[in-house]
Amino acid sequence: MLQTGLAARLAARTGALAHPTSGLAPSYLQANLVVLPARHAADFRLLCARNPVPCPLLAESQHPGSATALRSHLAATGVTGATLAADIDLRRDAPRYRVYRDGELVAEKADVAAEWADDHVGFLIGCSYSFEAALAAAGLAPRHVVQQRNVAMYRTAVPLAPAGVFTGATVVVSMRPYRPEHVGRVREVTRPFGATHGEPLAWGWEALAQLGIGDLARPEWGDVCLTGDGRRAFCRDDSEGFVPVFWGCGVTPQEAVMRAGLEGTVMGHAPGHMIVLDVRDHEVFPGLVGSGEVAEVER
Amino acid sequence: MLQTGLAARLAARTGALAHPTSGLAPSYLQANLVVLPARHAADFRLLCARNPVPCPLLAESQHPGSATALRSHLAATGVTGATLAADIDLRRDAPRYRVYRDGELVAEKADVAAEWADDHVGFLIGCSYSFEAALAAAGLAPRHVVQQRNVAMYRTAVPLAPAGVFTGATVVVSMRPYRPEHVGRVREVTRPFGATHGEPLAWGWEALAQLGIGDLARPEWGDVCLTGDGRRAFCRDDSEGFVPVFWGCGVTPQEAVMRAGLEGTVMGHAPGHMIVLDVRDHEVFPGLVGSGEVAEVER
Repeated sequence: MLQTGLAARLAARTGALAHPTSGLAPSYLQANLVVLPARHAADFRLLCARNPVPCPLLAESQHPGSATALRSHLAATGVTGATLAADIDLRRDAPRYRVYRDGELVAEKADVAAEWADDHVGFLIGCSYSFEAALAAAGLAPRHVVQQRNVAMYRTAVPLAPAGVFTGATVVVSMRPYRPEHVGRVREVTRPFGATHGEPLAWGWEALAQLGIGDLARPEWGDVCLTGDGRRAFCRDDSEGFVPVFWGCGVTPQEAVMRAGLEGTVMGHAPGHMIVLDVRDHEVFPGLVGSGEVAEVER
Repeated sequence: MLQTGLAARLAARTGALAHPTSGLAPSYLQANLVVLPARHAADFRLLCARNPVPCPLLAESQHPGSATALRSHLAATGVTGATLAADIDLRRDAPRYRVYRDGELVAEKADVAAEWADDHVGFLIGCSYSFEAALAAAGLAPRHVVQQRNVAMYRTAVPLAPAGVFTGATVVVSMRPYRPEHVGRVREVTRPFGATHGEPLAWGWEALAQLGIGDLARPEWGDVCLTGDGRRAFCRDDSEGFVPVFWGCGVTPQEAVMRAGLEGTVMGHAPGHMIVLDVRDHEVFPGLVGSGEVAEVER
């Protein structure tokens, strides 16, 4: 089994791993990948710095063109590029990639070795898998995890703070349904995960208006998880009384890049097919106990 | 004249300076002040980290109760607490203070030496005076500066990312009118000022809907500066064709604190009566030329 970040990366690199990485190598940090021409790197870095909740930047290529060495953006926590992933190849270590040319999706493939150019800069962005394990450990497993579905994701009307060429984008959120009396605990459990979206952006039915989300039953990505009357979807007991809880989502920076309509070749991982790193949650998030074990889940 | 940060602080400390600090000690960084009981310090720090554009945290008390030594949040730029201000007294160095008890404004006074307790933590937050000097130096002086008015400020519908006790607040923005053909240059000039709100959040007439601002002629704070048809207010030549440009505003964290309705004593500077620091713009914002001189302004 693929129990470490390195095992997952090597499997992806050799073509042995081609499916989504959810559940792989528990407690090892997983990352979204965005690859841009170097001339847009400064603007993208600024976009992440100005919007750290939906766009938590973990690391980037050591220098333009480098696919095998990382420069850490978590220096304040003592996590270096080599700690994040010592043996890494950004061109091959995601199980699946998407390639865009002049803003159009042109290919989905197992590696991007042929597309990677001397001026490409890879960016790794935090992913919510980390706090989902912590929620499960607290007896608050997200519904989609229990049901082995994709988390529901929505475009909001909340403007992203622009940065250079990256203008006009809005925040994308993921949604997990909880009972109102559990929201306080859910906020506490996810709060320490600053590099992977942290505590929720909004919760309760009033959050729909605050965020500008029209219809819970129509997520832009992922599976429907909660109906408008507080019933959870795909739910045997059909129980009521749940409210939506929204977090910043790592799809946000990809959306911002697509919306910028950049010329040239832009790449990223295929949704759900993340790059798994060497660091574990408790090394990045001080104060967490080092465990990826999942305790009894909420049913 | 009060040409340095230290001169301005000493004048405020001795009661010789009691008016707003706009225009004092050109090129020296000015800061907003928020003072909270220590039990809310971690949540406030997180609020600023999650919302760096409207809430750029520069420094805080070295330890709870300390009014005379700072801990820098700009360590990445090499700026230490002592560089920010070596001789400082957070209880006396703003020309005017506001005191809130259990969420109610109870006093406005020249110093808060009597109210400052052993568990108070002072936070210094960046202010847009820095980039206004740079805009003026680029021949793009903001209208309210030329007219010696207050900048117009608006509450928006854009939710602030919550942090602990700080929930339910929205972003406050400042507005400066520009001609559409100047917006690109205005974005470039203000972009490097990351610790003082940086480049605009939105611009043009469509920004009103994006931010949820109803009526430009009714700012929540400051002076009306632009009418709904693109005419600048208090303007001799009555020229048309201006559009609103909106930046994150340092009133945001104060609003978030007020909305949290904290028990106990909370304090801050009175609007416009900032604490002037020892560092100069070009020391905090790499890449800027070291000058506070104002070149020819746009009329």
